[in-house]
Amino acid sequence: MAELKSKFLQVYAVLKSELLNDSAFEFTDDSRHWIDRMLDYNVPGGKLNRGLSVVESYKLLKLEKELTDDEFFLASSLGWCIEWLQAYFLVLDDIMDSSHTRRGQPCWFRLPKVGMIAVNDGIILRNHISRILKKHFKGKPYYVDLLDLFNEVEFQTTHGQMIDLITTFVGEKDLSKYSLNLHRRIVEYKTGYYSFYLPVACALLMFGDNLESHGNVKGILLEMGTYFQVQDDYLDCFGDPKEIGKIGTDIEDFKCSWLVVKALELCNEDQKQILNENYGKQDPACVAKVKELYKELKIQDVYLEYERTRYEKITNSIEAHPSKEVQAVLKSFLAKIYKRHK
Amino acid sequence: MAELKSKFLQVYAVLKSELLNDSAFEFTDDSRHWIDRMLDYNVPGGKLNRGLSVVESYKLLKLEKELTDDEFFLASSLGWCIEWLQAYFLVLDDIMDSSHTRRGQPCWFRLPKVGMIAVNDGIILRNHISRILKKHFKGKPYYVDLLDLFNEVEFQTTHGQMIDLITTFVGEKDLSKYSLNLHRRIVEYKTGYYSFYLPVACALLMFGDNLESHGNVKGILLEMGTYFQVQDDYLDCFGDPKEIGKIGTDIEDFKCSWLVVKALELCNEDQKQILNENYGKQDPACVAKVKELYKELKIQDVYLEYERTRYEKITNSIEAHPSKEVQAVLKSFLAKIYKRHK
Repeated sequence: MAELKSKFLQVYAVLKSELLNDSAFEFTDDSRHWIDRMLDYNVPGGKLNRGLSVVESYKLLKLEKELTDDEFFLASSLGWCIEWLQAYFLVLDDIMDSSHTRRGQPCWFRLPKVGMIAVNDGIILRNHISRILKKHFKGKPYYVDLLDLFNEVEFQTTHGQMIDLITTFVGEKDLSKYSLNLHRRIVEYKTGYYSFYLPVACALLMFGDNLESHGNVKGILLEMGTYFQVQDDYLDCFGDPKEIGKIGTDIEDFKCSWLVVKALELCNEDQKQILNENYGKQDPACVAKVKELYKELKIQDVYLEYERTRYEKITNSIEAHPSKEVQAVLKSFLAKIYKRHK
Repeated sequence: MAELKSKFLQVYAVLKSELLNDSAFEFTDDSRHWIDRMLDYNVPGGKLNRGLSVVESYKLLKLEKELTDDEFFLASSLGWCIEWLQAYFLVLDDIMDSSHTRRGQPCWFRLPKVGMIAVNDGIILRNHISRILKKHFKGKPYYVDLLDLFNEVEFQTTHGQMIDLITTFVGEKDLSKYSLNLHRRIVEYKTGYYSFYLPVACALLMFGDNLESHGNVKGILLEMGTYFQVQDDYLDCFGDPKEIGKIGTDIEDFKCSWLVVKALELCNEDQKQILNENYGKQDPACVAKVKELYKELKIQDVYLEYERTRYEKITNSIEAHPSKEVQAVLKSFLAKIYKRHK
C-alpha cells in the first residue's frame, strides 16, 4: 500500500509539471509559481482514497494481473482527476461554509495572500481535469464518455451542494424541514456521486466496459456514499479533531446532519424545544446543550446500530451482483470505510 | 435585429425549462425555484452580443441562406452556452472584485439571501453548459470538439483572470510591474478567447469546419478582443455609468488598466509620483487626482488615436483573409464594437 501510494504520488508530480508548462497559456513566473503552490497546498494532502481506488478497482477488474506501466499511469491519472475534483470542491466549500481548517491546516482562502482569489483557484482546479483528460485520453475510444462522466458527476455534486446551502442558509432556521429524505438527497448528490460512483465508473470505462450494462453498481455505490456521509456527520460531532483534521461546526452551522435528523425523530416535545432554541447558534453553551441532548437520546448507540444494519444490507446487495470482479471492487470500497474514525 | 433577439430569447426559455427538469438531479421545489430565479437574474440581462454573434456568424457562413428551424435552435443554443459562460464568469468575478452593481442591478452575491451561495451558483452555470451541449449536440460529429473548445477557452479565461488577480492583489502595490505586455496578456486570456474567438469557433464547428484550417482567424479575433478590453478600461473611467450599467472602480482597485499603463508611459517623474501615491486607494480625493492626471496627459486623445489605428490595422488583417464569408463574419464583429459607448 505504501508503495502504491508512493508510485501514485510520482504520477502527481508528472501531471503537475505538465500543467505548469501547458502551452495553451503564457505563464508569467509569478503565475506559474502561484499554481505550483496552490496545487501542493490543496491537491495531494488528503487520504487519497478516491484516487487510489481507481487504480485498485482497475486492478481487481483485471483479476489482479500486473498492470503495465502505461495502464498504471492512466489509471492513476484518472484517480488524480478525482483528487483534483475533490480539491476543487473543498476549496470552494470552505469559502461558502466560512471554514477555518482543512486537513490540519488553514483553509486555502484563509491565507492572507489568497483570500477571494481562492474562487478562481478553485475553478482552475476544475479546468486542470479537462487538461489532464485531453492530454492523456484524447483519442481513446472512451474519451468522450470520460468527459460526459466528469461533467454529469460535477453537475450532481453542485446541485447536492445547492440544496445543502439553501436549507442551511436561506429563510428562517426551521428544523421542521429537516427529514431523512432531505438528508439522503443532499448527501447522495453532494458526496455519493463523486466519491463513490465516479472512481468505479472511471475504472470501468478504462477497462472498456459500458457504464449502462452494470445494473445496480451505481445504486450500491450511492448507498455506500450515504453511509459514508452519515459517518462524516457523526465524526463532525463525536470524532477526534486531530484524526479528522478539522473542528466540526455542523451544530453551529445549522447543518442538515444525520444526527439532528435522528434526534428530531426520537425526541419528545420538550427536547424538540431545546433543539429549536439551540441548534444553529454560534454560542458554545448552545452547542453544549445540543450535544447533551444527543447523549440523552443515545444517538451514539443509534449510530452504531445504523452502521451495523447498513453494513449488512450493502454486503447482501454486493453478493447479489453477477460479476465476481465487480463484487471484489465493491467489497474493497466497503472495507475501507466500515468503522472508520477519520 | 429585434426579431432575431426575440427568437433568440425564446430559445433561452426552452433551455431553461429543460435544465429545471433535468432528470440527472432530484429537484426539490425550493431548489428548482432557486435556479429559475438565479438564471433569470444572471443570464439573459446583458447585451447578448456574444450569443447572438454565433447565430449571425453561422448565417454569414451559410451565405445568408435562411436557417432551418433546427439550425437556428442549435446555433442559438451555442450562443446561449456562451452567455451562460459569461454569466458564470461575472457572478464569480463580482465576488472576487467585491463589486456592487452589474448590468444596472446589485451583483447576485450582494442579494441578502444569496451571499456566498453565489459561488456554487456560479459553477452551476458552468455545469449547465455541459448539460445543454450533451442534450442537443451529443451524437453530432463535432460534439467532442465542442467540449474541448469550451474547456480550453475556460482554462484560458481563468488563467487570464489569475494573472489579473495576482498582479492586482498580491504583494505590495507596485506600479513598476505594469506594462503593455502584461496588460495584453491579461486581457487576451481573460476576455479575448471567450468573447471573440469562442463565438466564431462555435459557428465554424457547427458549419462543419475544422478550427485548425482557419489560419489567422484566431489571431484577428484576439486582437479585436484586446481592443474591446481597452475600450472597457476606457469606459470604466470615462464612460457613463448609466450606459455601462456599473460604476467603474479600476483606479480604486489598482487594476492593470490600459489607462494607467499609458499614463505610466507618458508621465514625467513628478507625475509618476502622483500615480504611485494615489493609484489603488479608496479615498475619492486620490481617485480624483488620478483622473486629473489622466486629463493632463490627454489620455482621452491617446485613446482616440489608439482606436483609430487599431481599427485600421484589424481591418487590413481581415481583408487579407482568403475567404469572403469569414471576412464578413470578422467585419460584423468589428463593426459592433467600433466606437462603442457601452
